[in-house]
Amino acid sequence: MVEEAAAFKITHVKESRVKQLDPENIVFGSLFTDHMLVADCIDGVWQTPEILPYGDIAYNPALASLHYGQSIFEGMKAFRNVDNEVVMFRPEENFKRFNISAERMCMAQVPEEIFMGGLKEILKLDSAWVPDGEDNSLYLRPFMFASDVYLGVRPSFNYRFMIIMSPAGKYYSTPPKVKIETEYIRAATGGVGYAKCAGNYAASLYPAKLAQEQGYTQLLWTDAQTHTKFEESGTMNVFFVQNGKLLTPKTSTTILKGITRDSLINIARDSGYEVSEQDVYVKDIVEGIKDGSVTEVFGAGTAVVVSPFSGVGFEGDDIPLPAITEKSISSVLKQKLDGIRKGKLEDTHGWVYKV
Amino acid sequence: MVEEAAAFKITHVKESRVKQLDPENIVFGSLFTDHMLVADCIDGVWQTPEILPYGDIAYNPALASLHYGQSIFEGMKAFRNVDNEVVMFRPEENFKRFNISAERMCMAQVPEEIFMGGLKEILKLDSAWVPDGEDNSLYLRPFMFASDVYLGVRPSFNYRFMIIMSPAGKYYSTPPKVKIETEYIRAATGGVGYAKCAGNYAASLYPAKLAQEQGYTQLLWTDAQTHTKFEESGTMNVFFVQNGKLLTPKTSTTILKGITRDSLINIARDSGYEVSEQDVYVKDIVEGIKDGSVTEVFGAGTAVVVSPFSGVGFEGDDIPLPAITEKSISSVLKQKLDGIRKGKLEDTHGWVYKV
Repeated sequence: MVEEAAAFKITHVKESRVKQLDPENIVFGSLFTDHMLVADCIDGVWQTPEILPYGDIAYNPALASLHYGQSIFEGMKAFRNVDNEVVMFRPEENFKRFNISAERMCMAQVPEEIFMGGLKEILKLDSAWVPDGEDNSLYLRPFMFASDVYLGVRPSFNYRFMIIMSPAGKYYSTPPKVKIETEYIRAATGGVGYAKCAGNYAASLYPAKLAQEQGYTQLLWTDAQTHTKFEESGTMNVFFVQNGKLLTPKTSTTILKGITRDSLINIARDSGYEVSEQDVYVKDIVEGIKDGSVTEVFGAGTAVVVSPFSGVGFEGDDIPLPAITEKSISSVLKQKLDGIRKGKLEDTHGWVYKV
Repeated sequence: MVEEAAAFKITHVKESRVKQLDPENIVFGSLFTDHMLVADCIDGVWQTPEILPYGDIAYNPALASLHYGQSIFEGMKAFRNVDNEVVMFRPEENFKRFNISAERMCMAQVPEEIFMGGLKEILKLDSAWVPDGEDNSLYLRPFMFASDVYLGVRPSFNYRFMIIMSPAGKYYSTPPKVKIETEYIRAATGGVGYAKCAGNYAASLYPAKLAQEQGYTQLLWTDAQTHTKFEESGTMNVFFVQNGKLLTPKTSTTILKGITRDSLINIARDSGYEVSEQDVYVKDIVEGIKDGSVTEVFGAGTAVVVSPFSGVGFEGDDIPLPAITEKSISSVLKQKLDGIRKGKLEDTHGWVYKV
């Protein structure tokens, strides 16, 4: 694919707010960088993307996405590597997935020069916002929503694509204890589970709240049809270590095809671990934790990177997992992924994307 | 429940735009009345609702509902009755369902004085917008969305409730031909099918588009588990007439509990028809249309009221339904419902609500 430079109309901030960023004390998702990108697709024609000072935008109350949820997003990160360069990690994969989500939600396809070109352009402008520090990054949020002013139920004719950015630190401070969910669902065959659409997240809040009231941090989702097979955990993909072998549910229309998931599978195989993408049964994992054959269960996603769980809850029982050490597979994989991202380890797959 | 008058802060328009309304030529969902209602719930505390001139509102790009879809709505109508009074139809039922949706989506409960009181207040102000005419009404759109400025996945702390209103005419100009959907789903057990949330509508667009490309107007949804039982049609509930008896799927967590549906069941029983809320199997209906025992299939909802189908598509075959006459059950029920709404027939159930 030829990557053409799109003409971006840029309006710079008068004064940067970057002094508001304290790398020692980052609260996720509430402080935003100086600029934002806005690109409108009007009746199928993409207009010149604008980069302008971050701030409020006025919308008609009949904005279609507020009523019918045609809204998708991606979550990505930019890092400062050992040479103090700003890098992204496999951004083309997010770009591809974004357009897969768009197709399922009947939305416009975003051109590469707007998505990828926009990320590069805005990251260059706000590069001072990419924080230093072990677990720190700049979280990138490309998103798109239906922008018709119309109350009929139909795909919008107009869409707005935006990129906003927010400094991020560590996600969970303590290892989460997760509940195996066997009543509520995140996704079902024939639905939109593989799309990163707004409605999937809203639907998950209530069962997550019930679990939190029961003392759990997050959910381990099971399949809608039988509730016997694992799908995801919270907003992450999930991995299991049984007898030293990595297991993870194979992707489907009900599971988001995680880029961290794919990276970890590759790194694990490169490191000599056996990895199997397969049906992973609740029964086998619960028994395995009890008999000691399952030693690790962890989530994997952009926000958390790798998040080992302290235990799982199943049918009212809490089943603790062994404590994680530096030698745990999840620790090894996380360190290797971090190493590649930050330029400490060789990037054999060509994953690191210099801005 | 004691209905207290909430203090509404009202800002009137300088000049009404009601002359833009042409009752002979109404396009649904794109023209809005002079005023809108806005009420904010801040950290669980409802602020004084404001009624102000309809217009754009500024939002932060990190508005939670745009990213994670915490957004619900209701669809209601106000009519001009034979005595030229403005009436609503069973609005308390919409109010109850709104808060049921809110609970499932982890959103704030809206107080009766804001929802019901707000509808009355804004309808009084904009009563000139309630059009005359057989199929005309003023469509009322109460809706609520997460208004936190935050990118973390969690229930919002703040919500905005709004009411906007738009004149409505007839929905479908010709009887729709519907496709029995056996691959994609609208809802599944454990999900949010019974909530009137934004994401349900976005998810339905793609399969509806595929059906439209095959020459159908809308979908007849079947159950996610087996695809053998009917659930809804498009954004409506669905009824079948077999051997003179009315059948409709019983409500569940995957079916929206329609107020038109309930009204039609009551009117049908009042009129001496037998009605059964039950599992309705695809096989039985397809065979029934072919052998002539199934004579009518129709959708029921606020937007369409009663919408008889011209035929159904199943596994590539088009199966036509007999043409509807004035004696068809759907015609009789529609006329009775209209009659009650407009004050031509006695309102034995106390459904009509004078503003």
